[in-house]
Amino acid sequence: MKIYKANIIHTPTPGKLEIIPHGYVVVKSNGLVEGIYKELPENMDWRRQVMDFGDKLLIPAFNDLHVHAPQYRNMGLALDLELLPWLNTYTFPEETKYADPEYARRLYRRFVHELWMQGTMRSAVFATIHPEATRILADLFIQAGMGAMVGLVGMNRNSPDTLQNTTDEVMAGMKMLKAHLDEHGNGLVTPIITPRFVPSCSDKMLTALGEYAKETGLPVQSHLSENRSEIEWVKQLEPDTTCYGDAYNKYGLFGQTPTLMAHCCYTDGEEMEMMKRNGVYVVHCPMSNSNLSSGMAPIRKFLNAGINVALGTDVSAGHHMSMLRVMQYAIQVSKLNYAQTKGEMQFLSLSEVFYLATKGGGAFFGKVGSFEPGYEFDALLVDDSYLNYDNYTLEQRLERYIYLGDDRDIKRRFCRGVELTEPCFN
Amino acid sequence: MKIYKANIIHTPTPGKLEIIPHGYVVVKSNGLVEGIYKELPENMDWRRQVMDFGDKLLIPAFNDLHVHAPQYRNMGLALDLELLPWLNTYTFPEETKYADPEYARRLYRRFVHELWMQGTMRSAVFATIHPEATRILADLFIQAGMGAMVGLVGMNRNSPDTLQNTTDEVMAGMKMLKAHLDEHGNGLVTPIITPRFVPSCSDKMLTALGEYAKETGLPVQSHLSENRSEIEWVKQLEPDTTCYGDAYNKYGLFGQTPTLMAHCCYTDGEEMEMMKRNGVYVVHCPMSNSNLSSGMAPIRKFLNAGINVALGTDVSAGHHMSMLRVMQYAIQVSKLNYAQTKGEMQFLSLSEVFYLATKGGGAFFGKVGSFEPGYEFDALLVDDSYLNYDNYTLEQRLERYIYLGDDRDIKRRFCRGVELTEPCFN
Repeated sequence: MKIYKANIIHTPTPGKLEIIPHGYVVVKSNGLVEGIYKELPENMDWRRQVMDFGDKLLIPAFNDLHVHAPQYRNMGLALDLELLPWLNTYTFPEETKYADPEYARRLYRRFVHELWMQGTMRSAVFATIHPEATRILADLFIQAGMGAMVGLVGMNRNSPDTLQNTTDEVMAGMKMLKAHLDEHGNGLVTPIITPRFVPSCSDKMLTALGEYAKETGLPVQSHLSENRSEIEWVKQLEPDTTCYGDAYNKYGLFGQTPTLMAHCCYTDGEEMEMMKRNGVYVVHCPMSNSNLSSGMAPIRKFLNAGINVALGTDVSAGHHMSMLRVMQYAIQVSKLNYAQTKGEMQFLSLSEVFYLATKGGGAFFGKVGSFEPGYEFDALLVDDSYLNYDNYTLEQRLERYIYLGDDRDIKRRFCRGVELTEPCFN
Repeated sequence: MKIYKANIIHTPTPGKLEIIPHGYVVVKSNGLVEGIYKELPENMDWRRQVMDFGDKLLIPAFNDLHVHAPQYRNMGLALDLELLPWLNTYTFPEETKYADPEYARRLYRRFVHELWMQGTMRSAVFATIHPEATRILADLFIQAGMGAMVGLVGMNRNSPDTLQNTTDEVMAGMKMLKAHLDEHGNGLVTPIITPRFVPSCSDKMLTALGEYAKETGLPVQSHLSENRSEIEWVKQLEPDTTCYGDAYNKYGLFGQTPTLMAHCCYTDGEEMEMMKRNGVYVVHCPMSNSNLSSGMAPIRKFLNAGINVALGTDVSAGHHMSMLRVMQYAIQVSKLNYAQTKGEMQFLSLSEVFYLATKGGGAFFGKVGSFEPGYEFDALLVDDSYLNYDNYTLEQRLERYIYLGDDRDIKRRFCRGVELTEPCFN
């Protein structure tokens, strides 16, 4: 049992901050939240054990539901092309290097370290086609104590010869990864079925991945309706589908097990209906969508329709690992959408994007992203004292931290109840 | 005479980086650049005096051509309204506090300190209607050694009673400020004529300010065509003008002396022609324009037309003082514009926005923003070693610094040849 005292802020309900000034959160030894309190009950035995964090902020940790680990070296680079030429020119050549486990180990260490630094305690990660490198990545997450769904990528068409796997290879690799994590994992790091996107995967590969999803119940992640040229291409590649989403759906990769679909800039009509019906998550990547000129996803429409929405950095099409930045972009892009539609689509509020970055994405991992009873205690302790020089309210302090803060402000990080110190990989 | 050795990067020409690896910049005792060299001439006496900065980057310092000093407290806050209600609800009440010189001194110290921290060595600043507070701000800039054009704001209509000055008051205040800076200034801090914007200023005030510009040759700054409702309002207020810009022009406040116009989101046709003809600067504030749902300024069109363009944070409608962020937003917004116009307007390149943030805005201060001979030596020494772990080129290092860097990376700051240490205001 642990008790932490601080200014507690979270969003049990979308769009509504719950703020407990100098409140207490009680965390059970299994890492789950027992409850939050304004005052501790008089008869509570462990009143002496309170860890008092003073005037700092205690918030749920961030969840990044779409990020490409092997693109980390290219972060902040090579953002002068649209999606399809960008993949061929910059991204595929970099991912090819992960055939070398030593290269993978060196770069993946940096990647996992930076997730820790930015306060992202859970992530859904694309690796590459390389099983050994992907296993290394999963092991680094285990070593760091952070939660992750790690995806060995399947891709066997329209890609460089040096960056393709066969259906048999991706299946064998996934089974190896699953067996490895079943045996050596801590339950926080799990595999996720990861067809790169429809243009990269033959029908045979999609069929096999869909069957594996059905057999194992494993979750699925991929890309959907990111860019106009991509959507046209999918239409040509899969003529007997009603929409891009249908090209996943017909193989059982669209909500038959829990599913993340990144981008959805142009998702509408039939595709939107299907996502709602199947409980598929939209992973909104506004930083990436701006950098690659992809477009502005209509998140307000998705929320109004009751579709699950999470946020992703999409590094390296997104140029920064901070979920603070993603929240800023999510609001700003929604405001440009609002201006373009002359006010038709109401922009996102700060509390809405805070929800998306914590509980919205956390839901994909279970009870994660909130301090409600029974939730896994994933938290960040934030020291915003340098920003708080003039009697700001706690709501204003959260807002200023989101807009002005960075990794320096995070003083402690917790994942499933355990405080994670800086990863030091040997 | 000073000689600095580092990886030198600047943009003498828009859109074209000049990179001198381990080059030398020679700065004369008057603070002007004598020249940059790949190797020092053999016969140069002062070869012994070289200050070697190793593998760091040496770039021109940043210039913020539109920022509101008295909105500093609200930075990262209160971004849930459009321009006109935002002014009335959040901004005017905060600016009213600057009637108290002690409040002004306390907050302006933080503001000037943060400009220093972010590497912004020159700025064009809106103060408030309060002469005493504005003088305090100017003095803080002098004390810090940084360049600034400081504007006492004129506003006498459509504003709270507590935040208006009369024409006589703004004229008297400006004369006081000019006399003060003529006598006590160092030439780096000068006054700028600052009608808030047309809706805030009566014809009488605009007439007086225009005459003062003509009489003194002082530069002018204001806001133009930021938001649709504002443009409609100006049409009603000034029915005998052909466009918003014309409402400044007819009073001699539109390029008759050097002029900055912030925003220009909807500037086109006649207004664009007039800006070009009169040499008026567009100050592009993409962070602000996103935050207040103002719109996406057509910067590519302005550049193609040969109009002067600079960049501004527009704090606190912009939420951050870093010009790195402004560069990122300038590129990203231009890409969303590109996607919306289906490729008609080519987006801005990294070297183009780097030019705008340095030499583009610097031109308003004279020979500033480049290391060409005769330019004032305004520079930042950047340590990006934590980002440079894998043999990046110098161009890539600059790109990654712009996308991923922050104030921590700036190790030394120079303004007109003088190294500026951290301001410590007594």
